[in-house]
Amino acid sequence: MRALFFDVFGTLVDWRTGVARESRAALAPLGYDLDWLAFADAWRAQYQPSLETVRSGARPFVKLDALHRETLRLVLPAFGVAPLDDAALDELTLAWHRLDAWPDVAEGLARLRGKFLLAPVSNGHISLMSALARRNGFHWDAILGAEHARNYKPRAEVYLAAADAFDLAPQDCAMVAAHTNDLVHAARLGLKTAHVARPDEHGPGKGERAPGANVDHAAQSLIELADKLV
Amino acid sequence: MRALFFDVFGTLVDWRTGVARESRAALAPLGYDLDWLAFADAWRAQYQPSLETVRSGARPFVKLDALHRETLRLVLPAFGVAPLDDAALDELTLAWHRLDAWPDVAEGLARLRGKFLLAPVSNGHISLMSALARRNGFHWDAILGAEHARNYKPRAEVYLAAADAFDLAPQDCAMVAAHTNDLVHAARLGLKTAHVARPDEHGPGKGERAPGANVDHAAQSLIELADKLV
Repeated sequence: MRALFFDVFGTLVDWRTGVARESRAALAPLGYDLDWLAFADAWRAQYQPSLETVRSGARPFVKLDALHRETLRLVLPAFGVAPLDDAALDELTLAWHRLDAWPDVAEGLARLRGKFLLAPVSNGHISLMSALARRNGFHWDAILGAEHARNYKPRAEVYLAAADAFDLAPQDCAMVAAHTNDLVHAARLGLKTAHVARPDEHGPGKGERAPGANVDHAAQSLIELADKLV
Repeated sequence: MRALFFDVFGTLVDWRTGVARESRAALAPLGYDLDWLAFADAWRAQYQPSLETVRSGARPFVKLDALHRETLRLVLPAFGVAPLDDAALDELTLAWHRLDAWPDVAEGLARLRGKFLLAPVSNGHISLMSALARRNGFHWDAILGAEHARNYKPRAEVYLAAADAFDLAPQDCAMVAAHTNDLVHAARLGLKTAHVARPDEHGPGKGERAPGANVDHAAQSLIELADKLV
């Protein structure tokens, strides 16, 4: 293995409490008091359907910010929020740029970087990935993933374009994710796989505690993964 | 200004002495003793014509390694080198991945990173840029440029795609280069410009000592540029 590719939302950063916190910061000053975690869950529930509009070929590639902004407008009415102006929608969309990493990530990535090329292979685009990297102290060798391939995981071209960007064969690369589905698709293309447990991703005890399929490596944190691989 | 985009060959790294050194390391063991600097100059002289085959639309985008490998085969006979096997051609092509930065670059970039997003906007591709970053200790926010835009500078889309990747307008970005031509093309699109003198790029005293057109900033090193901008 020469390169490690990382899923980001859920695997490296805690999107749920972060989106809840940032949504509150944007909407509470406007007088709203939502169930912020439920709002984050509802927004995220629109994620896969919105990606599918691109994966299916129904529309050309657009960055995840554009999809988040569209789905935000779908979700707000159910929480009793009146239509927001463009500036407020833009600001709320940036909640996804302001997420915090799980506590093991910065140290784990730094150790893994001693042996492997590291890149996010996320459905987040370049500006979002670079914002999360700045906020959390990640040092990527390149930002790969959806914007590089101009399609969304788990479409095969996203994984294959990432390996090609480093001039590597799929079998020289590993996908690291907290989601079995992501790993199953990567494995079909020949990539190695590493599962990281994020048992609290969707709320306490509501994440994957263990992989649901065969993987090459499984760990409870990126520090444990570094212990195994470096 | 929110982001700085960097030309790399000549501006950040000394391609001439590096290619000469790496070519010697590859070919001397095969019994060859060339004028190594003249060989580096001759190989580089094929650079713009090879880029033009892509810029003109005569062929689809290919990575710079592919162009370097083709032009290598054009240049070797003039230096009396017999046809090399594929492995030797591949190895020699990687000379461009093993170039050293000018002495001011690592410190200058580190200081500029405190205020700006930083990305290479080079005609080198992602694997080549990440190799140079590892070798020289550069910390990029993203690797943009030719492979991202799938065309070669000075085509407009390369500069515009870089700004778009960071969700910025061209006027929020600056191109930093040792080559007036690169800056003139960037300025036409609305980017700010910064010239860094590299008077020895093509041999002692044979580089641009000063910009040949109006630029927004001019400096003798990236450390001086950081003094002006940070």
